[in-house]
Amino acid sequence: MADVAVKRDTDSVETDELSQRVKRAKAGDEDGGGEAGEEPEAENILSGFKTSNILSDSAREKNIFIHGKLADQDAVVILEKTPIREDILAEVFSGSSLKLEMRNDIYSTYRLQAPPHLNEIKTTVVCPATEKHVKKYQRQESFLVEETGKDYQSITLPYIQKQSFSVQWVYNILEKKAEAERIVYEDPDPKAGFVLLPDFKWDQKQVDDLYLIAIVHQRDIRSLRDLTSEHIPLLQNIFQKGKEAILQRYNLPASRLRVYLHYQPSYYHLHVHFTKLGYEAPGCGVERAHLLADVIQNLQSDPDYYKNRTLYFPLRADDGLLSKFKEAGRL
Amino acid sequence: MADVAVKRDTDSVETDELSQRVKRAKAGDEDGGGEAGEEPEAENILSGFKTSNILSDSAREKNIFIHGKLADQDAVVILEKTPIREDILAEVFSGSSLKLEMRNDIYSTYRLQAPPHLNEIKTTVVCPATEKHVKKYQRQESFLVEETGKDYQSITLPYIQKQSFSVQWVYNILEKKAEAERIVYEDPDPKAGFVLLPDFKWDQKQVDDLYLIAIVHQRDIRSLRDLTSEHIPLLQNIFQKGKEAILQRYNLPASRLRVYLHYQPSYYHLHVHFTKLGYEAPGCGVERAHLLADVIQNLQSDPDYYKNRTLYFPLRADDGLLSKFKEAGRL
Repeated sequence: MADVAVKRDTDSVETDELSQRVKRAKAGDEDGGGEAGEEPEAENILSGFKTSNILSDSAREKNIFIHGKLADQDAVVILEKTPIREDILAEVFSGSSLKLEMRNDIYSTYRLQAPPHLNEIKTTVVCPATEKHVKKYQRQESFLVEETGKDYQSITLPYIQKQSFSVQWVYNILEKKAEAERIVYEDPDPKAGFVLLPDFKWDQKQVDDLYLIAIVHQRDIRSLRDLTSEHIPLLQNIFQKGKEAILQRYNLPASRLRVYLHYQPSYYHLHVHFTKLGYEAPGCGVERAHLLADVIQNLQSDPDYYKNRTLYFPLRADDGLLSKFKEAGRL
Repeated sequence: MADVAVKRDTDSVETDELSQRVKRAKAGDEDGGGEAGEEPEAENILSGFKTSNILSDSAREKNIFIHGKLADQDAVVILEKTPIREDILAEVFSGSSLKLEMRNDIYSTYRLQAPPHLNEIKTTVVCPATEKHVKKYQRQESFLVEETGKDYQSITLPYIQKQSFSVQWVYNILEKKAEAERIVYEDPDPKAGFVLLPDFKWDQKQVDDLYLIAIVHQRDIRSLRDLTSEHIPLLQNIFQKGKEAILQRYNLPASRLRVYLHYQPSYYHLHVHFTKLGYEAPGCGVERAHLLADVIQNLQSDPDYYKNRTLYFPLRADDGLLSKFKEAGRL
């Protein structure tokens, strides 16, 4: 299953036309702006979208990742059905039409057609999309890699540095140049502080699939590998204040949360994932996730734990880093 | 997550009224039967449905299991969003309306409202439903528990011992009294040996969801907590020979496997899980799974690692052990 976390890459040029149309839509300037107080309806920018190929899809998760063209630019469009919420059930039951498919004894199945506003599809558009985006969403087989402390220094770190993945979009968030209204909590301290906001994947309409990200203000921590005991106050601060903020805002106590880091992370600026415990968030598997509580415990027992430790993580078949490990005879 | 497979129970009495209405709908006798050749639309039998409570739901899988009343009878209604098919995309894109939610650089998100016939909801009705049906679909919330080495001694261990969970079925396998034909590999050594066989959950029809269990011959290791450095040869033996056997039998190399233990385990006789890396096996989440490679590494660095370590694990709301932790003020 392709990692749904959108890896932001701002080296690309924005479509003036697309951004203008969307910005106007957001400001309510379009003819379809509607009544005062109503949400403006965006011009259906996807009516001109031409599918090139399907990158991946999941029947289990009811989503699809599509590569295509939008206004002559490469784009990736992600569609995902939305969870079914209890609070709209009565409306759904009274306002839908049913087509019977099968009946057998006490069991019967139907195809139900609901009012569209009660059955929306979460849509994400990445445009213009780079080759990196297209590759990211392309479903690939995974391989487990064993990375010693030495491997990190000789293989992974040089690779990361050479790629120079842009995290400008992260800085935009930290500097409130983008997504400022989405911020749930901030501790502005430059050393121990962070910004907490909903992850892209979460539409915030229900807590069942709660997913927030805490992005640290410090800019020199790439990943788990850079963490030492001097970062314990930072990590504890994220844990403590993040949990409190989530309890305040969403009424979800710490015992209902899964709080972890990824290794390898999707982007090399330290961030922590807060997901609801019962929700099998993509990427919460043991091969990639590391409980924040465990990370803190490890650093308390050994300041250089993550310098020396052998770490395991999955890499997709087309990942350049996997090739490096193969070349080094480590796979 | 409730098992979606519908469990049939034919001891129940069919609702004459309901079945008659639905059968007539199927035969096209209803006024809403429509034109010849068209699918008959069932009377919206759910317009009279009254929700009693939600049994479970999955934001990831976009489904919901509802207990309620239909024509004065107990019923379970299951709604599930349908996968997104490639063949209807063009129609969806041209026929939908979009509401902009957010824009940041090249990324934008929308709520898309599609024509209902392109966005149906799979609906199953079990009516009349028995108490067995209702219990089957009832999900329990999970809580994350923090267990120190001391907590294990004072809370968990006494609880396990008092429960005296029977592992006779495990001994039956080890002694070839049961499931002997399912054994994929065995090392009969009483100290370092184990039996490897497919897990119940795997139908062995494809390797996509490969799942095997290695059960140790030693009978005095309950779980991770009992492991010390003296067990390293055992653990390494399981890892090595298990991987080899899987490569031989299923042509799947070690780099495609996820090999781990559970804490808490489902049963208190040491066993190791071998699952395919790309398969998100239930229970492979970081809150419960521990990579075997990590366990070996931990014991190599500290012989008493699992005696002293604080471990985290999820417990269901109805788990007796959760009550013990609550009583002890640890939750």
